[in-house]
Amino acid sequence: MKKITSLFKIKYPIIQGGMIWASGWKLASAVSNAGGLGIIGAGSMNPETIIKHISKCKKATSKPFGVNVPLLYPEMDQVMKILIDQQISIVFTSAGNPNTWTLKLKNAGCKVVHVVSSVKFAIKAEKAGVDAIVAEGFEAGGHNGREETTTMVLIPLIKKAVKIPLIAAGGICSGESMAAAICLGADGVQVGSRFVVTEEASSHINFKKAVISADQGSTILTLKELTPVRMIKNKFYKEILNIYSKGASPELLTEHLGKGRAKKGMFEGDLDQGELEIGQVASQINEIKPASEIIEGMINEFNKVLSIISLYKL
Amino acid sequence: MKKITSLFKIKYPIIQGGMIWASGWKLASAVSNAGGLGIIGAGSMNPETIIKHISKCKKATSKPFGVNVPLLYPEMDQVMKILIDQQISIVFTSAGNPNTWTLKLKNAGCKVVHVVSSVKFAIKAEKAGVDAIVAEGFEAGGHNGREETTTMVLIPLIKKAVKIPLIAAGGICSGESMAAAICLGADGVQVGSRFVVTEEASSHINFKKAVISADQGSTILTLKELTPVRMIKNKFYKEILNIYSKGASPELLTEHLGKGRAKKGMFEGDLDQGELEIGQVASQINEIKPASEIIEGMINEFNKVLSIISLYKL
Repeated sequence: MKKITSLFKIKYPIIQGGMIWASGWKLASAVSNAGGLGIIGAGSMNPETIIKHISKCKKATSKPFGVNVPLLYPEMDQVMKILIDQQISIVFTSAGNPNTWTLKLKNAGCKVVHVVSSVKFAIKAEKAGVDAIVAEGFEAGGHNGREETTTMVLIPLIKKAVKIPLIAAGGICSGESMAAAICLGADGVQVGSRFVVTEEASSHINFKKAVISADQGSTILTLKELTPVRMIKNKFYKEILNIYSKGASPELLTEHLGKGRAKKGMFEGDLDQGELEIGQVASQINEIKPASEIIEGMINEFNKVLSIISLYKL
Repeated sequence: MKKITSLFKIKYPIIQGGMIWASGWKLASAVSNAGGLGIIGAGSMNPETIIKHISKCKKATSKPFGVNVPLLYPEMDQVMKILIDQQISIVFTSAGNPNTWTLKLKNAGCKVVHVVSSVKFAIKAEKAGVDAIVAEGFEAGGHNGREETTTMVLIPLIKKAVKIPLIAAGGICSGESMAAAICLGADGVQVGSRFVVTEEASSHINFKKAVISADQGSTILTLKELTPVRMIKNKFYKEILNIYSKGASPELLTEHLGKGRAKKGMFEGDLDQGELEIGQVASQINEIKPASEIIEGMINEFNKVLSIISLYKL
């Protein structure tokens, strides 16, 4: 775990995921102030908004924080220029080719972390020169891999395939699951869904409440013909199912998906027609809390699990 | 873990899954002799074969072993009579209603364990009076739950919902994953796929080699319209995909599935036309070993992980 805390100069190896429509400066600075690594999720921000959030985050914390950029972002050159100009020291990239930007960011003094869901892309990212990898399992919310590999299986596979520090994501929302990830070979954890249901997340209150109401089986990985995404099975999902029952073509799915579904659901709170991206751990989330309490709670649980399990030697 | 080792009177809290066409007396007795709990998988045996395997297993080990019976077995009354007559002390039931047989088995002096993949059925099984639960995640091989909940998420959910001992299954094939399961709240682990690729498993050598060749993404949970099953994406699976592309009706799928697919693949070694049930951990299995070496290896790794992780207190 030292590998991750040293790399980012943070107290705890807990990284907040850069969930779109949730991870603005408020959440990122709260996580960083509590000893984790806060991340601004740039995927749902236009360039001006990114600058605004970076500026506010710098004022709200003196601790390190990062920015997450999906590499399919439309104004990529502009965003990367912003990150470099603003001297962002930690950049998480996802959903794209790690070769395109890693070297440029590293030359500008950034630590670069790439998010993957397969061994193949983990190796590719390591070769591209990234400083660490986030490996995200099937249970994670939002966009996800086609192999459907769960965190339990993915982490040992990737641990064996690469040498750089490894951050586990998917299914992690407690000290217990954090300890499990460390046992599997991770050096740290990325927590997404749990931080959506915080006071500081910019997610709509309706969405936060929908996550609290979610049970086992409330989420599903769907739209595999386009980009697989885990979301709550709401009215919009039932409409997708209806398209499937008629033999879903990618064209029909794309048409029904349209634009702005994620914003509509997660930021504007339209629980029927919006896309509500969240992980399977939604079933374990029962309360809106400040981000600092989540981190404190995880650390306490983690230490408790370690005390107990150390008695279990066989 | 004491809860599981005391319940079954075994040395290590490692239970071998009752995988069909793999788990005869040879595998079960080898696992029990090595300190785990060996299980005869009755699902693929006719009543006479069950009697034969029980008799040989008793001769091959003086340690406790169990029998796994899917509750959809056609000659259920006959099989239960055999188990009771043969004084089998541990019965694992799956794929059915735990209310039907639990009390009768318990009255006959059996410990009864029921396999579930959801919180709802875990609670139902506890109410039915079972002694322990196996909770099986999405990554597990063979038949699986509709909720697609992964082991990482399922174990903490079920741990919170029931008081009886909890055995984690799905994604577990090493001391690292065993330690992870214990951190998540399990009292023991059930290992299926790893024991398929042993010298003692009755699985066909072609199937064992196919598991060794499997990579990340080689298995998939499919046939969800009938009973969801995780299997290798072989020619038979591609034919299923073809049926799906034409808008799969359960009738068409059932017709193509036909009878004896599992036997054909896993016991007769027809890698093209057989159903090859195995978990995602197939990607981590590289070698045929004796069952005892697998258990020894897991225990050594488990102890090593515990030594390392105990230094990680935050």
